Amino acid sequence: MEKIKVFCPATIANISCGFDVLGVALDAVGDEMVVRKVDKKGISITKVVGQELPLETEKNVAGVAGLEFLKASDYSGGFEIEIYKKIKPGSGIGSSAASSTGAVWGMNHLLGNPFSKTELVTFAMEGERLASDVAHADNVAPALFGDFTLVRSYTPLDIVPIKAPSELYATVIHPQIEIKTSDSRKILKTTLSMETAIKQWGNVGGLIAGLLQNDYELIGRSLEDHIVEPIRSILIPGFDIVKNASLQAGALGAGISGSGPSIFAFSKGLEIAQKVAIAMAEVYDKIGIEYDVHVSKINQQGIKIL
Amino acid sequence: MEKIKVFCPATIANISCGFDVLGVALDAVGDEMVVRKVDKKGISITKVVGQELPLETEKNVAGVAGLEFLKASDYSGGFEIEIYKKIKPGSGIGSSAASSTGAVWGMNHLLGNPFSKTELVTFAMEGERLASDVAHADNVAPALFGDFTLVRSYTPLDIVPIKAPSELYATVIHPQIEIKTSDSRKILKTTLSMETAIKQWGNVGGLIAGLLQNDYELIGRSLEDHIVEPIRSILIPGFDIVKNASLQAGALGAGISGSGPSIFAFSKGLEIAQKVAIAMAEVYDKIGIEYDVHVSKINQQGIKIL
Repeated sequence: MEKIKVFCPATIANISCGFDVLGVALDAVGDEMVVRKVDKKGISITKVVGQELPLETEKNVAGVAGLEFLKASDYSGGFEIEIYKKIKPGSGIGSSAASSTGAVWGMNHLLGNPFSKTELVTFAMEGERLASDVAHADNVAPALFGDFTLVRSYTPLDIVPIKAPSELYATVIHPQIEIKTSDSRKILKTTLSMETAIKQWGNVGGLIAGLLQNDYELIGRSLEDHIVEPIRSILIPGFDIVKNASLQAGALGAGISGSGPSIFAFSKGLEIAQKVAIAMAEVYDKIGIEYDVHVSKINQQGIKIL
Repeated sequence: MEKIKVFCPATIANISCGFDVLGVALDAVGDEMVVRKVDKKGISITKVVGQELPLETEKNVAGVAGLEFLKASDYSGGFEIEIYKKIKPGSGIGSSAASSTGAVWGMNHLLGNPFSKTELVTFAMEGERLASDVAHADNVAPALFGDFTLVRSYTPLDIVPIKAPSELYATVIHPQIEIKTSDSRKILKTTLSMETAIKQWGNVGGLIAGLLQNDYELIGRSLEDHIVEPIRSILIPGFDIVKNASLQAGALGAGISGSGPSIFAFSKGLEIAQKVAIAMAEVYDKIGIEYDVHVSKINQQGIKIL
């Protein structure tokens, strides 16, 4: 095979309690990419459709992730990459992660899968470093593995796939304001009280237990964030109103998607997830902010061939 | 029924990464208690065998927990309690929790179980407050529920039972030095870095996932503590040597049991758990410190009638 076209899912990182460690892949939103094996060494970004993004390899997250892949590979040729961008950069649903992972997953597939998914995560993390100054894995891991993922450890990298209950749906609304991940990290505190930290790891444990035991109520109760949400939500107009509207519409819980401004909610069943979408949209209609809203089943496989 | 005799299991709290939220009940070690319904109001501790502990109701953890129970109950009589102490106070395997929970569980049983297990946890936590100044729930919850428990939240109290894999065994060694829980809390820092906190909740998530997915290797990798162990282990002679000896004998992981000085290790299968016990004991034989060592299956039901 010389060419492959892939779907690269959007992802929700952090998921309230799991700052920098938890993420989940979506089904209804994602980029498309074409990866082509060529004789010429290196990575060429030949086309970006849908968004204005740099074509220079070193300035494009897919290019940077691709170069990391090549560094670790004994393949002597190169790849051309076309990106059909559907996820808006800066929306907080893993736009850069979709491009980084799509590139390395496609390249790996074309070479007969010499690298493990966890190795692909390490390459794609370099794309994240370009996008946000920090090589975090909480978006690239679910994009590659599908479902929920836990980054148990960064050194060594240890990704734990977590299966989602079958009736779990995500609603994500993206108010059309841009927050750069790098900016939204700067406002976070670098220390916290033991008391707050204990609450947070209680909720991480609860969320994992809820997901693995199909306990929807426990999932909902665990979607608490005592550390990041109180600070970052200030940057998102109407955050509290949207969150409350989601809960009143029947969502299990809601929070900031990644570094925002997107807001996510989880619901049991498609019907409630759709009601939540309407309730969220009504808030931004009233405030007068443009938005995109998506309702999605949890993506169970991660990147897939189109 | 007017009288009941119960087995109250020893428990390991914290379990490396889960400070103040995780605990597990043991099968091989525990107190025995007799609880008797009497007409006279209040709680009388009529006998303590095996240890010198106060008989005054307000100074005995079982008495204090019992009084909390009576406060919440509409029962007009009282109870007499006999305690046959097998768990050494100050050993770090839930000595006070065994007495507190045994009292309230027995009383609840004799009255036809008017209270839920979570309500019993709140009563027993007052016994913990007497013992250590802090009403923590990470020993009393597993003593009452059995297996592993996660205290997802203290306000409101939310206990999540977590089933242990069937081949998981605990080895616990108690070097005969006493550390008071209240002292061992004082040396802990009250703030921590975000970086350290992220590692900790990654491990809590990993441990819960490992337990629920019967992934013994993941359980082992998650038994890391970047916060409490580096500080508290200083109080435990030979801690690093015992921990390393456990791992070399095949344990999945090891750490401080509760506030110490007991050291626990988890192993897959009885045979390895017994080898770990020998390896731990050899260390204290060489150092010349007296010890008790126990090998135990995970207790699946908590307190039980004898």
